[in-house]
Amino acid sequence: MIFLHSSYRMVPKILSPCRQSFSTSIQTEWNHSLPSKVRIVEVGPRDGLQNEKNFVPTEEKIKFIDKLTETGLETIEVTSFISPKWVPQLADAKQVFTSIQKKPGVRYPVLVPNLKGLEAALEAGAQEIAIFAAASETFSRKNLNCSIDESLSRFKQVTEEARKQGLSVRGYVSCVAGCPFEGPIETDKVVKVTRGLFEMGCYEVSLGDTIGVGTPGDFHRILQALKPHVSMSALAVHCHDTRGTALANILTALQYQVAVVDASVAGLGGCPFAPGATGNVATEDVIYMLRGMHIDVGPVDLSALITCGQQVCDLLGKKNNSKVAVATQARNKMHAKL
Amino acid sequence: MIFLHSSYRMVPKILSPCRQSFSTSIQTEWNHSLPSKVRIVEVGPRDGLQNEKNFVPTEEKIKFIDKLTETGLETIEVTSFISPKWVPQLADAKQVFTSIQKKPGVRYPVLVPNLKGLEAALEAGAQEIAIFAAASETFSRKNLNCSIDESLSRFKQVTEEARKQGLSVRGYVSCVAGCPFEGPIETDKVVKVTRGLFEMGCYEVSLGDTIGVGTPGDFHRILQALKPHVSMSALAVHCHDTRGTALANILTALQYQVAVVDASVAGLGGCPFAPGATGNVATEDVIYMLRGMHIDVGPVDLSALITCGQQVCDLLGKKNNSKVAVATQARNKMHAKL
Repeated sequence: MIFLHSSYRMVPKILSPCRQSFSTSIQTEWNHSLPSKVRIVEVGPRDGLQNEKNFVPTEEKIKFIDKLTETGLETIEVTSFISPKWVPQLADAKQVFTSIQKKPGVRYPVLVPNLKGLEAALEAGAQEIAIFAAASETFSRKNLNCSIDESLSRFKQVTEEARKQGLSVRGYVSCVAGCPFEGPIETDKVVKVTRGLFEMGCYEVSLGDTIGVGTPGDFHRILQALKPHVSMSALAVHCHDTRGTALANILTALQYQVAVVDASVAGLGGCPFAPGATGNVATEDVIYMLRGMHIDVGPVDLSALITCGQQVCDLLGKKNNSKVAVATQARNKMHAKL
Repeated sequence: MIFLHSSYRMVPKILSPCRQSFSTSIQTEWNHSLPSKVRIVEVGPRDGLQNEKNFVPTEEKIKFIDKLTETGLETIEVTSFISPKWVPQLADAKQVFTSIQKKPGVRYPVLVPNLKGLEAALEAGAQEIAIFAAASETFSRKNLNCSIDESLSRFKQVTEEARKQGLSVRGYVSCVAGCPFEGPIETDKVVKVTRGLFEMGCYEVSLGDTIGVGTPGDFHRILQALKPHVSMSALAVHCHDTRGTALANILTALQYQVAVVDASVAGLGGCPFAPGATGNVATEDVIYMLRGMHIDVGPVDLSALITCGQQVCDLLGKKNNSKVAVATQARNKMHAKL
């Protein structure tokens, strides 16, 4: 579109993220084919921080998670009870988990790779854990040091033990749309691993486009194949925005009645397979889109979330990968100047 | 998803932008509800450059457009025959338009604001023009210095004269999802202006989310309202990615059988209403998503387009706003090192 130079000096009106709608009846019709409520799973503290090279002080992690809780987010993946040899950044899992302010009604899952991790998570008082398998053989071997089948039997033990102890177990499947080592991944493998995770007792399985290569075509193909086997309402999507397609992929998943979306504040967590590129889809962007579609995402305060995301970016010395945050802050700065 | 540190040292396999598909039958089914072919309208040389403060040398503009032609793009909006007082960057419209290498079969539309602009475009030998109205009264006054109704009657004259001379006329409607001055825009206004442009003889109307506030909810509402009045196959969408929603909005439009998408290489053209934020959706990202959905976008060479986009970013000293370009280049650099 064309902008005349005179326009630059005008004060643009602030568009609130929750804009009024003009055609409620039409919106209602659209919403019939989409979930009316979506649960956001904030993964910033875990997935966002785990690849940070410089150790983030434990105290800062705790402050960060407490601020996320204050924004009104309802599920926050806190950390990973994994060997510090594997992920040195999360060596302080226990301290972080036991020190954060836990708000009643908010869920604080943690990742565990094995029975030892489960034990540590239990000791720390976790009530929900997440386990992580891959749909790619090579990725499984590199990430978990075992085949897909071996990982499933290892996680079966973990899940059974966790459930005995009264914990809920969430499953992740990584590389659903592609693997950095193998390239495209057969749909059947995604179906097999997803079914395996449900069969062992996971209450929810999150489909991860780990390297952000997926398009709506991939999510359509995968969800279409999963449909006869699993309940769409028990699935989540975990999209990376490395190629800009995350929100479109999420929209596709919503059209399949998937109603749980993983996201990371400020898009924290880059892509180790494309250094400098974007990783996780930003929570702010997901919330903006879903509220624009009149979908209930809970009571989260988007402005507070934008502030929280910017603070953690400043702390890490990283650029903010939430487009909503960047646009909102740029617009606010422009207003402040005028 | 979790990545073990050992993975970092592995050589990831290159995922080609045109990946093989595993479930062709499923893809076929999905494609039934989507257009099988989408026409990309490259607006980088006009919409992308017009707000650049430093004058881009005419010779560089010509080189840039010639490179775009070489990538295989089929429609390239070249420039605007507008008073240099309004858009000094495009003061060289005639020289640029007459000097570029025009490939047979490729369309080279130009923007014109009035009869004077049309005259100049005709003199330069243009075969297709574009006119630009707004769905917001305030935006129309600030951008065109007249009301919506006045703009429509001005453009009616231009369109009639252009068609008499054998030119095709494309219409733009800006601010369809929101205006920087008025905020939300009533759907009825979008319908009125769109119909007006078709009635005066435009062969196609492009719906512009000029400040990138729209979500799939907005595009659904707008297209639903337009459906009884205009042919979906005569519409285009012009999405800005300021809040990350452009590809999701495009996906929504495709589901309404809209089959023409405006885009700007490297996402050229920021947002004057949120300085530093993203503007036009990147052509590379649109092509990546659509090819991933098995939609024919013509013979464009994505790698060549990425190179062309990076070259113009380097020339302008701007960051590349195509996520596909950034990820592809980061991955290539990683491979080169290993």
